[in-house]
Amino acid sequence: MRKFAALAATAGLVTAATASADEGMWTFDGFPATRMKAAYGWAPDQAWLDRVQASAVRLTGGCSASFVSPEGLILTNHHCVAQCAQDLSSSSKDFLKDGFIAGDRAREQKCPGQQAEVVTQITDVTKPVTAAIGSLSGEALTKARDAQIAQIEAQNCTDKATTRCQVVTLYGGGQYKLYKYRKYSDVRLVWAPEFAAAFFGGDPDNFNFPRYNLDASFLRAYENGRPVSTPAHLRWNPRGPIAEEATFVVGNPGRTQRLLTQDQLAFQREVAIPLTTTLLSEWRGRLIAAGAQSEERRREAQDSLFGTENSYKVYWGQARALDDDAFAASLAKNEADLQRRAGTRYGTPWADIAAADRSLRNIYLDYYFLEARAGWTSDLYGYAKALVRAAAERQKPNADRLPGYTDSALPLVEKQLTDAKPIEPWLEEANLSFWLSKAREYLTADNPQVKALLGRESPEQLAKRLVSGTKLADPAVRKRLFDGGAAAIAASDDPLIRFVLANDAAARSLRQQYAAQVDAPVTAAQAKIAQARFAAYGAGNYPDATFTLRISYGRVMGWTERGREIPYETKVGGLYERATGADPFQLAPAYARAKSSLDLNTPFDFVTTNDIIGGNSGSPVIARDGSVIGAAFDGNIHSLGGNFGYDPKLNRTVVVSAAAVQQALEKVYPAPTLVRELAAR
Amino acid sequence: MRKFAALAATAGLVTAATASADEGMWTFDGFPATRMKAAYGWAPDQAWLDRVQASAVRLTGGCSASFVSPEGLILTNHHCVAQCAQDLSSSSKDFLKDGFIAGDRAREQKCPGQQAEVVTQITDVTKPVTAAIGSLSGEALTKARDAQIAQIEAQNCTDKATTRCQVVTLYGGGQYKLYKYRKYSDVRLVWAPEFAAAFFGGDPDNFNFPRYNLDASFLRAYENGRPVSTPAHLRWNPRGPIAEEATFVVGNPGRTQRLLTQDQLAFQREVAIPLTTTLLSEWRGRLIAAGAQSEERRREAQDSLFGTENSYKVYWGQARALDDDAFAASLAKNEADLQRRAGTRYGTPWADIAAADRSLRNIYLDYYFLEARAGWTSDLYGYAKALVRAAAERQKPNADRLPGYTDSALPLVEKQLTDAKPIEPWLEEANLSFWLSKAREYLTADNPQVKALLGRESPEQLAKRLVSGTKLADPAVRKRLFDGGAAAIAASDDPLIRFVLANDAAARSLRQQYAAQVDAPVTAAQAKIAQARFAAYGAGNYPDATFTLRISYGRVMGWTERGREIPYETKVGGLYERATGADPFQLAPAYARAKSSLDLNTPFDFVTTNDIIGGNSGSPVIARDGSVIGAAFDGNIHSLGGNFGYDPKLNRTVVVSAAAVQQALEKVYPAPTLVRELAAR
Repeated sequence: MRKFAALAATAGLVTAATASADEGMWTFDGFPATRMKAAYGWAPDQAWLDRVQASAVRLTGGCSASFVSPEGLILTNHHCVAQCAQDLSSSSKDFLKDGFIAGDRAREQKCPGQQAEVVTQITDVTKPVTAAIGSLSGEALTKARDAQIAQIEAQNCTDKATTRCQVVTLYGGGQYKLYKYRKYSDVRLVWAPEFAAAFFGGDPDNFNFPRYNLDASFLRAYENGRPVSTPAHLRWNPRGPIAEEATFVVGNPGRTQRLLTQDQLAFQREVAIPLTTTLLSEWRGRLIAAGAQSEERRREAQDSLFGTENSYKVYWGQARALDDDAFAASLAKNEADLQRRAGTRYGTPWADIAAADRSLRNIYLDYYFLEARAGWTSDLYGYAKALVRAAAERQKPNADRLPGYTDSALPLVEKQLTDAKPIEPWLEEANLSFWLSKAREYLTADNPQVKALLGRESPEQLAKRLVSGTKLADPAVRKRLFDGGAAAIAASDDPLIRFVLANDAAARSLRQQYAAQVDAPVTAAQAKIAQARFAAYGAGNYPDATFTLRISYGRVMGWTERGREIPYETKVGGLYERATGADPFQLAPAYARAKSSLDLNTPFDFVTTNDIIGGNSGSPVIARDGSVIGAAFDGNIHSLGGNFGYDPKLNRTVVVSAAAVQQALEKVYPAPTLVRELAAR
Repeated sequence: MRKFAALAATAGLVTAATASADEGMWTFDGFPATRMKAAYGWAPDQAWLDRVQASAVRLTGGCSASFVSPEGLILTNHHCVAQCAQDLSSSSKDFLKDGFIAGDRAREQKCPGQQAEVVTQITDVTKPVTAAIGSLSGEALTKARDAQIAQIEAQNCTDKATTRCQVVTLYGGGQYKLYKYRKYSDVRLVWAPEFAAAFFGGDPDNFNFPRYNLDASFLRAYENGRPVSTPAHLRWNPRGPIAEEATFVVGNPGRTQRLLTQDQLAFQREVAIPLTTTLLSEWRGRLIAAGAQSEERRREAQDSLFGTENSYKVYWGQARALDDDAFAASLAKNEADLQRRAGTRYGTPWADIAAADRSLRNIYLDYYFLEARAGWTSDLYGYAKALVRAAAERQKPNADRLPGYTDSALPLVEKQLTDAKPIEPWLEEANLSFWLSKAREYLTADNPQVKALLGRESPEQLAKRLVSGTKLADPAVRKRLFDGGAAAIAASDDPLIRFVLANDAAARSLRQQYAAQVDAPVTAAQAKIAQARFAAYGAGNYPDATFTLRISYGRVMGWTERGREIPYETKVGGLYERATGADPFQLAPAYARAKSSLDLNTPFDFVTTNDIIGGNSGSPVIARDGSVIGAAFDGNIHSLGGNFGYDPKLNRTVVVSAAAVQQALEKVYPAPTLVRELAAR
C-alpha cells in the first residue's frame, strides 16, 4: 500500500448500516467504547484516547504517522518518505536506494512540500453549514456551502503560522465538523533503510502476505530551526505482536466509498475503474520502458512507478470486489433495507443521485481529462495551474473562492509551490505527452477543447515545447509569480503559464458543470440519506473515510485463504529464505552483511483485523497499554474491497513490527542516537 | 481495424435468434437470397455467388482479400501488408514509412509467412464428427472429435503442396463443415502507399469516421516462381459509392460471440476483457516509450504498437457495449426467449455452460499466462514452442495429435517456421520480460510454475539470457531443428528450446484441463443449444464468425450520432483540411507533393451497413454487378459491440474506395503497369 493520493471521484457517502465485528474507522469524538468492551472485555477511556490523539500525526504528503519521542521524532513508513528521499538525491547519491541515516540532528534534511499536522480540536459545525445550504440547489448550493466553510475556517485559525483549520464533510453531508490542527511545516528526514529492505518483494508482493518489509522510517518536526517539543508522544515498545492481542490503528484513512448507491457503484464499475486501470497500466508501461534506458532514469522514475503500480493494484482489487457476486449482493441488500425503512419520508434521494450519475456520465471524460487530471502527474503543470488559479482566486473575497484557494488553504499551497524540489524534464515531458495523447484519444481529435490544447502540434511536440521553455522548475521564479499575483501572471511569458491560462476558462467551466450537475444534487441527496440512516440505525456508526483522524480497533490474527491458514507474523529469517538474488527479491546489501549478527527469530511483519485503507500508511499500531508496537504499511489483497465494505474474515492490515525496526536501528542501519532517544523515558 | 489475430478465448457460440435488417455474416452455402430479395428487390444468383467465391482470398496473416486481375493480383488493405513491409525493411530502407512500388514483377518481394487461400469446396461433415463424439464427455470428447477431424482433413487433402483442408465448427458444434482450399504459399508485395497515407489519423481516428485513409495495397500470388493464373477474379471498378446502393462484403470475419450465454458474457465482462485491456495498455506504454528512444526502435516497434492499440480499442469497445444497459438487456432477452422455447427437451445446456464457466474462472489465469499467451508476442518463443511441440506431436499417429500439428496443419506451421524474417532482439527481450513479469504478477511469485519459469532470475535477466543465447533467429537453424524432429530437439542446447521443453509438461497439462473442464462441456452444451435454436427459429440463420469465408449484404449509408448526421463518404480534399502537420495528422509526403494534380472531389472513404468484424480487413466491397468498388478496412466505433450483436442503426463498415486507390495509382504513387493490369478486360 502506498500513501493516499486524492483522485477525482465522487465524494464518499454515508457509512454501512451496522458495523460488523472489528469494522470501523471511528472518529475520536465517536469512539464506540461500549461496543468494543462487549467484544473485548475492555475499551480505552477518554484519557487514553486524548493521549493517543495528541500523538497522532497527519503528513500532508498523504500518510499517517506518530510522535515517538519528546523531541519531535516521527515514526512513519519508508514509502511515505520515498518521494523525499528521491527529492534529496542526485546522480551522485541515491538515498532511496542506499538509505539515509542522519546520525546527528545537523544532518537531518528537510523534505520538500511535507507538513506534519496534529488535531487539537474537533467542533461540530453542522448547523451553520446546513443553514447556509438551506433549500438551495445547483451551483448556488455548492457556492453557499463553500462560502460558509471558508468563513468558519478563516475565523477559527487566525494564527496561520502554526494552525490549520479544515471543515470536514462527514456522512456525505450528514455532519460537518471543524478540525483544528497544530501544524509543523518543516519536516526533516532522519532515518530511512535501503529501498530493497523497505520494499522487498516489490510490486509482486504488494498487498500480499506473508511479507518481509522494513517499511519504516523516521522524520522529525522542526520549528525555527529547532526540533519541536512533543511531550505528547507514544512510548516505543520494540516487541513482537502477541496472538489475538487487541491493537489500535490511529491514522488518516484517505477515502472509502462504503455506501455508494447502486447507480454510483455501477459508475465506478463501468466507467471510473476501467478508465483508471487502463490509464495507469499504460503509464506504468511507459515508466518501465523509459526507466530501462539508464540507471539514472530508472532512479528518477522510481517513485512515480511504484506509486502507479500501487494505485493500479488498488483499482484492480476494487474491480474484483465489485465483480464478486456475493459482495455486490450484500451492498445491494444494505441499500434495499435502508430504502425500505426510509419509505417516502426523505424525498427521492436515490433517484436524485441516479439523475446526477447520468449527468456525471455525460461530463466525466471531459471533466477528468481537462480539469481533474489535467497534466497527469506533471509537477510543472501542477505549479502552473496552482499559480494561475491562486492569482485569480486571491483577487476575490475569501467566501467566493474555489475551495483549494481559501485563506485557510493557501498557506499549504504556497509552501508546496515554493519549496525547492528537483524536476526531471524528461519525466515532465512524458507526463504531459501522455496526458495530451490520452485526452485526444478519449475526447477525440475533433473535440474543440482538444483542438484548443493541441493546436497544430502533436502531444509530443507540445510537451517538449512547454517543458523546454518554462522556467517554473526554479522555486525563485515560482515565488515571484506567487507573490506577484494576478499582475505577474498576466505579464508572464512563460509558455506553461500561457498554456494553462489559455485553457483555464474551459477547465473552470467543467468544474462548474460538475459542481452544479453532480456535487450539488449528490450533496443534497446524501444529506437526506444520512438522515434516513441515523433514523434507521441510530447515530452510533462511523462516517466514510475523509483523510482525517480515525481510530480502528482489532486484534492480531491471520486468516484462511482457500482453506490454507495464513499465520499472523513473519520472522526475519524468512527474508533470507525468500531472497532469490534477483530484483525485487534481492536482499538489501545491509541485510546481507548483517545476517550473522541478527536474531533470525525476531518478528518482522504481522497482520491484524484493523479496518484501514490508503492514507493509513504509517499509522502507529498501538497496544492496550498505549505503546506503539509497529507501523501499518499495507493491507492484504482482500482489504482492497474495503473501499466498498469490510469483510472481517478476510480484510487484514499489514504491519512492520517495532521489534524489526529496533533490530534494524541496532544492527542493520545503526543509529545509536535514535536507539537512545526511543528508549528514553 | 487491424487484421484478425486469434486470441485465447471461449469458442464462438451459435448465432442470433433472428437476424435483423442487414445483419449477418452468411456462409456461401447458406446465402439468404429470399430474405435479401424481400429487402432489396434483388439478390445475387448462384452463378454470381460462385464467381465471387472463386475470387475471394483468405490471407493466413489474419486478413481477407480478392483477386483483381487474371495474373494473381490481390487487393487487400495496407494494414494487412504492414508486417510484410516492415519485415522487408532495414535501417537503410523503410518500406512501411515510405511505401513500396515494385514497378515490375521482378521486384515484387515475398512476404514472410504469408499464404493466400481460396475456398474450392464446402462439404457437410456433421454426421461423422457428431457420431465420433457420441455421448462422450471430458477429455475423451475433445480427443474423439479432434481425431475424427484430423482424419477427415488428411483424407480430403492428399496434395499438400496446393491444397489445405480445414474442418470448421459452426454454431459452436451444431454443424461441422469441411472447407477445402487452393493455397498459394508464395505471396509477394506489389504496391503499398506510405504509412502516413494508409493510416492518416492513426490511433485517434481508428474506428472513427469521417476518415481519410488510403488503407489499400496489392499483393501477387506466385507458384514455381511465376504469377499464378487467376481467371476467376473481380472486375476493378474505380468509381465512388452511390448513396444507398447495395454492397456485398466478402471475406473472413475472425470471431464473433453473439450468443454467449449470460454466464459467458459475465466472464468476458468481469475477467477476460479487464485482463486483456490492462495487459494491452501496459504493453502499449512499453512499446511507446521504447520506440521513443530512437528512430530505429520506433520503426521496429511500429507494427506491434499499432496492432496493440487496435486490439486495445476493440476490447475497450466491447466492454462499453456490454456495459450498455439496453444492449445487455437485449442479449439477456434473446437467451430467455430461447430457454422458454427449448423447455427441458435439450437437457441443461445453460447450466452445463455455467458449470464450465466456473471451472474456466479457476484455471483461466494459469491457462492464459502459461499456455495460451505464453511468450506474449515473441517470435522466438513462438518458434521454440512450435518446434518443441511439432517434434513431439509428429511422433504420434495423426489422430492423436494436438489440433495445430495434424498432417493438414503442419505445412503452414513449417512454412511459418522456415520463412526468413527479421528479428529484433530488443523487442524479443521486451516481449519475454513483459510476459514473465505479468505471469508473476497475476499468478504470484509463490506459484510453483512461476518459480519453475523464473528460477532465481528476474524476468529481465531471464529474457536477456534466453534472447542473447538462442540461435532461433536463423531460419536455417529452425529448419534443421524442424527436419531433425524429436532427436534434434532432445539434443539441442539452445537455451530457448531448453526453456520451452522444461516447462512444456506443465503447459500441456493446463491445455488438457482446459479441454476437459471447459472445451468439452461447452462443446456438448453448445450442440444442444444449437439444436434448440434450429428447432425454435429454423435453420435459416448464420453461424458465429470463424475466420472462414462469409458474405454480408448491406448498403452505402451514413448514420446518426447523438443527433448529428454522419455522411456516407469523404472526399480527397478533406484530407488536406484535416492535416495539422503533426503526426499522426501529418500529410504523407507524396500526397503533399501531388495535391495540385489531384481532383480533390474524388471519393476517398465511405461507410456501409455491412456486418463485419476483425478478419474482414481487406475484404472486397462488391457492387451489384460483381465489380469491386473498394476494400473494407475498418468498422466505426459502434461496430465493436458487433462482437456480441449487430445494431443496424449504428454499426458501419468503413471502406477505402476504388476511386481513391485508382487516383493514387495514377498520380500519387504512380504504378502505370498496375493501372494497365487493372483496366485490362
